Amino acid sequence: MKRLVKLVGGVVLVAALLPNAVAADDKEVIEYRQHIMNALNEQAAALGMIMSYAIPDDNAVAHFQAIALTAKTALKAFEPKVQGGEAKPDVWANWADFSKRMNEFAQNSEAVAKLGAAQGTEAAMQRVLDALPCKSCHDIYRTESKSKGKK
Amino acid sequence: MKRLVKLVGGVVLVAALLPNAVAADDKEVIEYRQHIMNALNEQAAALGMIMSYAIPDDNAVAHFQAIALTAKTALKAFEPKVQGGEAKPDVWANWADFSKRMNEFAQNSEAVAKLGAAQGTEAAMQRVLDALPCKSCHDIYRTESKSKGKK
Repeated sequence: MKRLVKLVGGVVLVAALLPNAVAADDKEVIEYRQHIMNALNEQAAALGMIMSYAIPDDNAVAHFQAIALTAKTALKAFEPKVQGGEAKPDVWANWADFSKRMNEFAQNSEAVAKLGAAQGTEAAMQRVLDALPCKSCHDIYRTESKSKGKK
Repeated sequence: MKRLVKLVGGVVLVAALLPNAVAADDKEVIEYRQHIMNALNEQAAALGMIMSYAIPDDNAVAHFQAIALTAKTALKAFEPKVQGGEAKPDVWANWADFSKRMNEFAQNSEAVAKLGAAQGTEAAMQRVLDALPCKSCHDIYRTESKSKGKK
């Protein structure tokens, strides 16, 4: 709404009354979180190619940093209780556990990214599972049917 | 090779003689840069949903930051002169222009991300084309056949 306020002066009062007026519909909620999880998947795949020595490691720290940043955005995208996509209903049924895992993912991946920036790629690689706990969470909270080929 | 040096002491000399010993094959080079461009595409799509008011803007600054970080990694991924994927041969035929555009994208998207972090989402949104010059570059350097549905 803030953008509308800037563009159209007349709606200032409306925006003030509705500070969180953006209401995403269910399809959009699902699509948005999929963009975030897909971004994580692409970054993890790029990092995986470096880990397996297929690609030189020039970008490794930046990949860790991008994963850490994206991890921070993921939980917010699941907050609306909208079932669908590849998310199991358990995401919301076990929200305390799901959100704990997501927050730990965000915190740990940020720590690994900082370690990489301070001490180099190799130091970060030693803690890569902290930065990429993908499978442990997907095994519980993601449906298998649509996730072939993903981590 | 550094990881091998750490794991297997006996190859220290080999690693010293071959400091850039990771030689990606052509298929891997293409796959790696696709992961990076796909990550950019997913982040841009997520940001696009916020720009169009489909999704609240809580994550907007983080999306800008992730785009800036990923943009930094993109040029390196195109340095090996390996044609294929969606990249036109012009990428390498016009490398001076392509790399200039990629570097400007990285610099400008970082500036917009910093603006967003300092002054908030709305300030960043005003300069969104600096952070997302996708189409102007894709029109020149990406094949159209495979890029349907992408920005």
